[in-house]
Amino acid sequence: MNIGILGTGMVGQTLGTKLAELGHSVKMGSRSASNEKAQTWAKATGSNASVGTFADAAKHGEILFNCTGGMVSLEALKAAGEENLDGKTLIDVSNALDFSKGFPPTLSVCNDDSIGEQIQRAFPKAKVVKTLNTVNCQLMVNPSIVPGEHDLFVSGNDADAKAQVTTILKDWFGWKNVIDMGDITTARGTEQLLPIWVRLMSLFKSPQFNFHIAKA
Amino acid sequence: MNIGILGTGMVGQTLGTKLAELGHSVKMGSRSASNEKAQTWAKATGSNASVGTFADAAKHGEILFNCTGGMVSLEALKAAGEENLDGKTLIDVSNALDFSKGFPPTLSVCNDDSIGEQIQRAFPKAKVVKTLNTVNCQLMVNPSIVPGEHDLFVSGNDADAKAQVTTILKDWFGWKNVIDMGDITTARGTEQLLPIWVRLMSLFKSPQFNFHIAKA
Repeated sequence: MNIGILGTGMVGQTLGTKLAELGHSVKMGSRSASNEKAQTWAKATGSNASVGTFADAAKHGEILFNCTGGMVSLEALKAAGEENLDGKTLIDVSNALDFSKGFPPTLSVCNDDSIGEQIQRAFPKAKVVKTLNTVNCQLMVNPSIVPGEHDLFVSGNDADAKAQVTTILKDWFGWKNVIDMGDITTARGTEQLLPIWVRLMSLFKSPQFNFHIAKA
Repeated sequence: MNIGILGTGMVGQTLGTKLAELGHSVKMGSRSASNEKAQTWAKATGSNASVGTFADAAKHGEILFNCTGGMVSLEALKAAGEENLDGKTLIDVSNALDFSKGFPPTLSVCNDDSIGEQIQRAFPKAKVVKTLNTVNCQLMVNPSIVPGEHDLFVSGNDADAKAQVTTILKDWFGWKNVIDMGDITTARGTEQLLPIWVRLMSLFKSPQFNFHIAKA
């Protein structure tokens, strides 16, 4: 499958590498087609990997991953071009962590809104599915790093897109437990897991942990 | 031990009943000493239970539980009287859920502050420990309702008060896993678990669930 990755950071690179290893054609997009990090990644990853602008990556992908920082996601997606998002499943992995006042970061959007909702409102024809934002990127593609039961959440308005993403999470990445939280407004809840996540990471001195919802 | 419960709702009643059953002398405080809910609770609970104003309950307790709604906690604690809080462990169970715009509620304080911090700032000589706010009240005093591993969080600036509260949680209420998150600012993280909590409750049609942090 052709997949577009928006963003060249650790999250985009880790997802892109895994997807290329699985045999998919992955184009990583950024502001400039000559982005050095993206080019280094593509060389290291091999023939399934290529680079381009945000628009190139979005045009290439049948499915798109938003791996840009939540504070710049709308801008990156505008650069990708609405026409290249329309009708596509857009997996939003972002968190709007604002470190401008140091640690702990605050969320630039929360409580009565979320980045997932902002993206869905800005691009109403894209099928936004919020997921993977509550775990470290190594864990995203290799959940067995953390033993035992633990959960991933999906939020989105389009049932078919959520089913498609759930299949990707389970069959491609190895997730066992995926909880369908409901429509895209439920992304408020999962994005607001980040404030405790960053504190737990400090406490454990490791990002290799995850939430499990234990039920009666 | 003499214990003061501030608030007459389900949370205050459930904690008060459990503490009275354990043999402690529990005074439930509210705006008025003649509060009907509190009086009905005390009659049903027996000789270890009594009622009074917020100030009566705070004066009575060697340890205090703030079981008022987070949006009115500061007001209730002011009515309790700073002199009745000074030097005491104040267990803050509250959440600032604002249902004024319907479901889902928003938090009236979050992101760069928390109710726990507001209380600690307003009453600097009280030893505020934030805990129990992330679980349903039945689960607070009977964690085995949910089988398997699941966790409770404590936040506070005073190490001795946190140790005392951890002993109460484990020895009196039966909690196995209590995670010391750090100082009172970490209450931001646990208070911000509520937005996903209310959505999970809707999804499961039950409040009998809890968070577990699975680690590598």
